[in-house]
Amino acid sequence: MPNLLITLKFDGSAYHGFQVQKNAITICEQFQNAVEKILGMRYNVKGCSRTDSGVHAEMFCLSVKTDSQIPEANLLRALNTALPHDIAVTDVRRVPDEFHARYSCVSKTYRYIIYNAPHKDPFRPTRVLHYPLTLDADMLDKQARNFIGEHDFSAFCAAGSSVTDNVRSVKDAKVFRCGDDVIFEVSANGFLYNMVRIMAGTLLDIAAGRIPPGEIPAIIESRDRKNAGKTAPARGLYLYFVEY
Amino acid sequence: MPNLLITLKFDGSAYHGFQVQKNAITICEQFQNAVEKILGMRYNVKGCSRTDSGVHAEMFCLSVKTDSQIPEANLLRALNTALPHDIAVTDVRRVPDEFHARYSCVSKTYRYIIYNAPHKDPFRPTRVLHYPLTLDADMLDKQARNFIGEHDFSAFCAAGSSVTDNVRSVKDAKVFRCGDDVIFEVSANGFLYNMVRIMAGTLLDIAAGRIPPGEIPAIIESRDRKNAGKTAPARGLYLYFVEY
Repeated sequence: MPNLLITLKFDGSAYHGFQVQKNAITICEQFQNAVEKILGMRYNVKGCSRTDSGVHAEMFCLSVKTDSQIPEANLLRALNTALPHDIAVTDVRRVPDEFHARYSCVSKTYRYIIYNAPHKDPFRPTRVLHYPLTLDADMLDKQARNFIGEHDFSAFCAAGSSVTDNVRSVKDAKVFRCGDDVIFEVSANGFLYNMVRIMAGTLLDIAAGRIPPGEIPAIIESRDRKNAGKTAPARGLYLYFVEY
Repeated sequence: MPNLLITLKFDGSAYHGFQVQKNAITICEQFQNAVEKILGMRYNVKGCSRTDSGVHAEMFCLSVKTDSQIPEANLLRALNTALPHDIAVTDVRRVPDEFHARYSCVSKTYRYIIYNAPHKDPFRPTRVLHYPLTLDADMLDKQARNFIGEHDFSAFCAAGSSVTDNVRSVKDAKVFRCGDDVIFEVSANGFLYNMVRIMAGTLLDIAAGRIPPGEIPAIIESRDRKNAGKTAPARGLYLYFVEY
């Protein structure tokens, strides 16, 4: 059966993440519904990551084995018609049988968007974190760079995670300003549960003076979640790029 | 009674325009509700323009005479708390008694945003017009510049308008690309009913080959609505700047 790699872009505001759940609408379910409308059958789908409720994606990849004979370009158009307005398909391509959207992934990049202006953004109430006091993006950039490297990120992992090996390799981490948005961007070979949101929350706690600047190396070293900052809300988080 | 000039920014997707209507939720009504929560009274509000159902504003001004003793900065914060997520107040200031948000206005600038990428934008389904075929922004810019000047814009006025003098002075009109957005921007001392949407629709009809390039001066000259293009959908339209 042909193995397809499908790239999505979605506004996660209305969804309980990607992974199918009972009694909650998810991205995966909407995708499976769309495929069922087109191909008449429900297929098993592998997503590149679980995403939390309310998290968005500029790029999200999934793989699905179907016996569809529809040319990729036509399937792409049909999917965009069948999917709701807040989920778009941007690419459909055939990949080798052994390709798996999650396990074949080499690195992922997330962005956390802070709307840093005096008043709320009426256009993106569920898509940015509003922070009204002026942030020093250069200072936060210096802090964020401490995340780079191979570390045990236990201090940046939500309690209740079942993962046992908490070592991850962060390839890049930075903060920059783009108009009124202050953006934290981080790339790694993998992420722990809530890792980006705890990193973003820690940066915001540094900005607010609740954690001293320069403390991130010691927080990583401690491997203790209690030493890191708050978990920033899901609405500012975007899966931004997936590399295979 | 102090006369206040209040500046809003709103996502109009959920509203039937600014002006109060029976059996439809409008921006003005939401604003009056918020003021009533804070000041305990319903006030008469003057908006800088009527806006159609589904039209947005980066900047919208209204004036209101109240006997409020609340300092402007506090009223601004209270309004932002009382208003729904899709309406923000960005400025509150006292103005002379004779100031009127509509009649004191010198010029207004509108933007029409066309999302010009192969696939729909899941983040802005109600906030841009999606046009998948590549647009030549430079060519459209040349066409748009023909709108500049003092003209009788009857050809760009929806049927059913009760206005009798259709002469307006367009100070600037241009088209430019910003990433995947192609933006038509037009400034004038006043606008006829649906004028910007008919201008945008005419530009799109030129792009699609339904109207020949270079035709805009003749369409203006004809003063006949039938010669202009389609009325572009409301969702791409933003009131962008209001000058007093």
